Amino acid sequence: MRFVQVVNLADKLTRFSEHWSPRIVGRVNDMHVKVVKLSGEFVWHHHDTEDELFLVVSGRLRMQLRDGDREVGPGEFIIVPRGVEHCPLALTDEVHVVLLEPVGTVNTGSAGGERTAEPETI
Amino acid sequence: MRFVQVVNLADKLTRFSEHWSPRIVGRVNDMHVKVVKLSGEFVWHHHDTEDELFLVVSGRLRMQLRDGDREVGPGEFIIVPRGVEHCPLALTDEVHVVLLEPVGTVNTGSAGGERTAEPETI
Repeated sequence: MRFVQVVNLADKLTRFSEHWSPRIVGRVNDMHVKVVKLSGEFVWHHHDTEDELFLVVSGRLRMQLRDGDREVGPGEFIIVPRGVEHCPLALTDEVHVVLLEPVGTVNTGSAGGERTAEPETI
Repeated sequence: MRFVQVVNLADKLTRFSEHWSPRIVGRVNDMHVKVVKLSGEFVWHHHDTEDELFLVVSGRLRMQLRDGDREVGPGEFIIVPRGVEHCPLALTDEVHVVLLEPVGTVNTGSAGGERTAEPETI
C-alpha cells in the first residue's frame, strides 16, 4: 500500500522556478495533479482527448479562447474541454496554478514545439 | 461546444449549507470536481476502485486512517488511494473542501447507510 502523505501546494511551488514546466504532485486514478508557474504568454494549442482544469493559487491568469478571454483569479478555476483551442497568458509577473489533466497530457498539446516539457514528479 | 465558464470556489460554497453533501462543480474527463462542507465526524469507509483527493480550502481536516491520522490545512491536499479505509473529521467548526474523484463515486463508499448523499450539480 502506498503511504498516504499530505501535500502542501505552497511548499511544492518553492521546489522549482521554471515557467511553463508542470511538475506532478499527485495522481487520482487516471488523472495527474500538477503544479505549474506561468509567466508571459504560452502558445495556442488544444488537446484532442483531454479536458484540462486550471486552478489559480496566486496571481491572475487570462485564458484566451477563440470565443473570447476569461480571467481567472486565486480560488477560481476554469476547465478547458478537449478540442478547445486555448492560450494561457499570465496577467501578473507570475501565476501559480494547479493543473488537473489525464496522465500523459502534453503541455503544448496539438502545437508541440520547443516549449514542450516532460513533467517530473516532485 | 460547451461554454467555458470560470468557477469561483468561495461563491459555490455559499450556495448550500448541508454538511457531508458534496456538490458537483465541474468535470474533467471521467473525474468530478466537487465542493463539500464538513462538520464533526463522518463514517469509516473505503472505495473499491476510486482514489479520492481532498483539498482543504478553509478550516482544518483530520483524515483518520488505520495507520494513523493526517492533518490537512488550507492549501493542502491528501489523496486517499482506493481500498484504503478512512474517516474524515472536521477539527474546526466547518471545513470547506474540494473533492476530486471519479464520476459515480458514492460519498460513503463501502459503508453505505443514511449518510449516503446523491450529489447535485450547482
